[in-house]
Amino acid sequence: NSFCTLLAPKMTSKAVPAVCRRLLLSEPGPVTNFKMSHDAAVKAPAGREVLVKVHACALAYRDVLDRQGAFKFIRRPTVLGHEFAGVVVAKGDEAQDFAVGDKVLSMHWDQTQAWPSPLNKAGAVDTMFGLTCDGGYGEYVTAPYGSFGKAPAKMSAVEAACVMSTFGTVWNGAFTRGQLQPGSSVLVTGATGGVGSAAVQLARAHGCRVTAVTSSAAKAEFLKEDLKADDVVVAKDDGSYKAAAHDMTIECVGGPTFASTLRATAPGGKMVLVGNVTNAKVDLPLGFCILNSVSIIGSDSIRREELSGPLADFMAKHDLRPRVHAVMPLAMAGAAHTMLERRAVCGRIVLNVSGGDW
Amino acid sequence: NSFCTLLAPKMTSKAVPAVCRRLLLSEPGPVTNFKMSHDAAVKAPAGREVLVKVHACALAYRDVLDRQGAFKFIRRPTVLGHEFAGVVVAKGDEAQDFAVGDKVLSMHWDQTQAWPSPLNKAGAVDTMFGLTCDGGYGEYVTAPYGSFGKAPAKMSAVEAACVMSTFGTVWNGAFTRGQLQPGSSVLVTGATGGVGSAAVQLARAHGCRVTAVTSSAAKAEFLKEDLKADDVVVAKDDGSYKAAAHDMTIECVGGPTFASTLRATAPGGKMVLVGNVTNAKVDLPLGFCILNSVSIIGSDSIRREELSGPLADFMAKHDLRPRVHAVMPLAMAGAAHTMLERRAVCGRIVLNVSGGDW
Repeated sequence: NSFCTLLAPKMTSKAVPAVCRRLLLSEPGPVTNFKMSHDAAVKAPAGREVLVKVHACALAYRDVLDRQGAFKFIRRPTVLGHEFAGVVVAKGDEAQDFAVGDKVLSMHWDQTQAWPSPLNKAGAVDTMFGLTCDGGYGEYVTAPYGSFGKAPAKMSAVEAACVMSTFGTVWNGAFTRGQLQPGSSVLVTGATGGVGSAAVQLARAHGCRVTAVTSSAAKAEFLKEDLKADDVVVAKDDGSYKAAAHDMTIECVGGPTFASTLRATAPGGKMVLVGNVTNAKVDLPLGFCILNSVSIIGSDSIRREELSGPLADFMAKHDLRPRVHAVMPLAMAGAAHTMLERRAVCGRIVLNVSGGDW
Repeated sequence: NSFCTLLAPKMTSKAVPAVCRRLLLSEPGPVTNFKMSHDAAVKAPAGREVLVKVHACALAYRDVLDRQGAFKFIRRPTVLGHEFAGVVVAKGDEAQDFAVGDKVLSMHWDQTQAWPSPLNKAGAVDTMFGLTCDGGYGEYVTAPYGSFGKAPAKMSAVEAACVMSTFGTVWNGAFTRGQLQPGSSVLVTGATGGVGSAAVQLARAHGCRVTAVTSSAAKAEFLKEDLKADDVVVAKDDGSYKAAAHDMTIECVGGPTFASTLRATAPGGKMVLVGNVTNAKVDLPLGFCILNSVSIIGSDSIRREELSGPLADFMAKHDLRPRVHAVMPLAMAGAAHTMLERRAVCGRIVLNVSGGDW
């Protein structure tokens, strides 16, 4: 005991380095605003905080929006990265749920602080990774324990980093809130993307018949062979498409496909809105929604208990894994953003932040 | 027995008159297209049909839309009236659920034929009262038993005629599908109308705190005194208004108020769309819906079993009654339409079709 007591401070100081490597975004703008820092200060965790060593950070189109300044309340400078996986290396004395050594993944913000939206009357909470709180484009992150969930077992850090806003938001929107029933017909737009590919996999594993909508005929084989979609529909260049009525539609694109997706939602059916948070406005025909008793369900997130519990169990049972397009070094984040802007990605790009998996 | 057998055909023939009085709409257009017929043929009920003697027919703004030709599939000529109450006077040999003498109210169409929408791949079903099937602006209606529900006990025909698209659609949208919880905060737009006043009453009786939104400061006292709204908000002339975030919002107006109502829906909250089926399109900000996990629930109807069961029980328990603005003779239907067009109505106008209650 006395040995441990003596040793403890030393271990803590070793676990909490003074500085680390982080990719700073000086201010919203082009990718040239990224600058690597090798001596970014690491904050020792206090109170409810944990310190997480980041192993992998996933990139989604929201990273591009964040970098471009879509959210006015972004910190300057900031460290982007709202979806990452790592290991708890130290914790404050009021930090619950996790032990040092636990593998965790980031939620988008501290869910004990706000739920289901990170915005409250006073504005955005101060724990939004990449926006109001430094995120996963760096080796260490200090944040409240409520900003993390236990990583699903048997997943690599690269995979765990890709689960939350893909499988997580779909699970919350389509399963928890939308109560998707086995045997239902489900249509998924943007089916080759990170969220869309998760939606196709979850619905298929749940025993649903799945129609996958993609903007690219070249990706039809991927959808059929790899994701096991029952049917594939290729949308026109303007995003519009035609499909029969489905019990549930999962809209992962937004503006361009919305009108077609609403028409593809059966009477009494549900349309789940997930994916990119943009400023897009779409035409909502009220009469159609009323006459057809359609429900529209927006979903941006998932409760951390739900992700680490029922969703992790479901994914393990059906051996579902996120689709990873490429793993790239942290210093290549700018190049990765350019790939995302060109929509040349099938699944998630993941940054290898600390050199190797956990 | 032999006496009954002998008498039965005679009773039936007496119960089914050859002709009756009906207000025909020659074709969609102005109120001058209404023409009273005194020798409209009464179809004897066959198979699954029942013959209902109409006592009261309620008018809503949809009557105006129907008359103006908002739905292209309207029959010419037609008899308007999709919400009426009456008594079963004869039935076909396959007609279930009702006995001669039962007090009934109309659903909008035969629910055994289609649900929850009366529109299917082949178009509108042929039992939509006022559109594809003659409705309640006449003394007798012949339609399948699935087009009717048992009238709630202890209600007059005038009251029963006003229940379905008001209390019914709100019950279906806010209670059955929206799972409204006691103690929630609820905001209702168009709160002085037939649907809105029902929503305020149902939510109050359920133990919710209710904010009523109206376009008219003159109606604020009615909302507070008569409907017991906790708070009243008067919207601007353009329909916009400001209100705090509510757990559930019930949008009974549509286009003009939609944007304000969406903003008044709390994160994780639900917006129930009920009321007029118009061709209005509104801007739906996708990012707002996603980031705030908002659900939008369209509701146009209610299952007949639900209306005659849980809703009727709830209304009886809390002594809830529809607000009736005026009872007018059938021949005054044109004048009633003009009142509706001028938005000079607080609750429903009801046509007294057969002279007296049931």
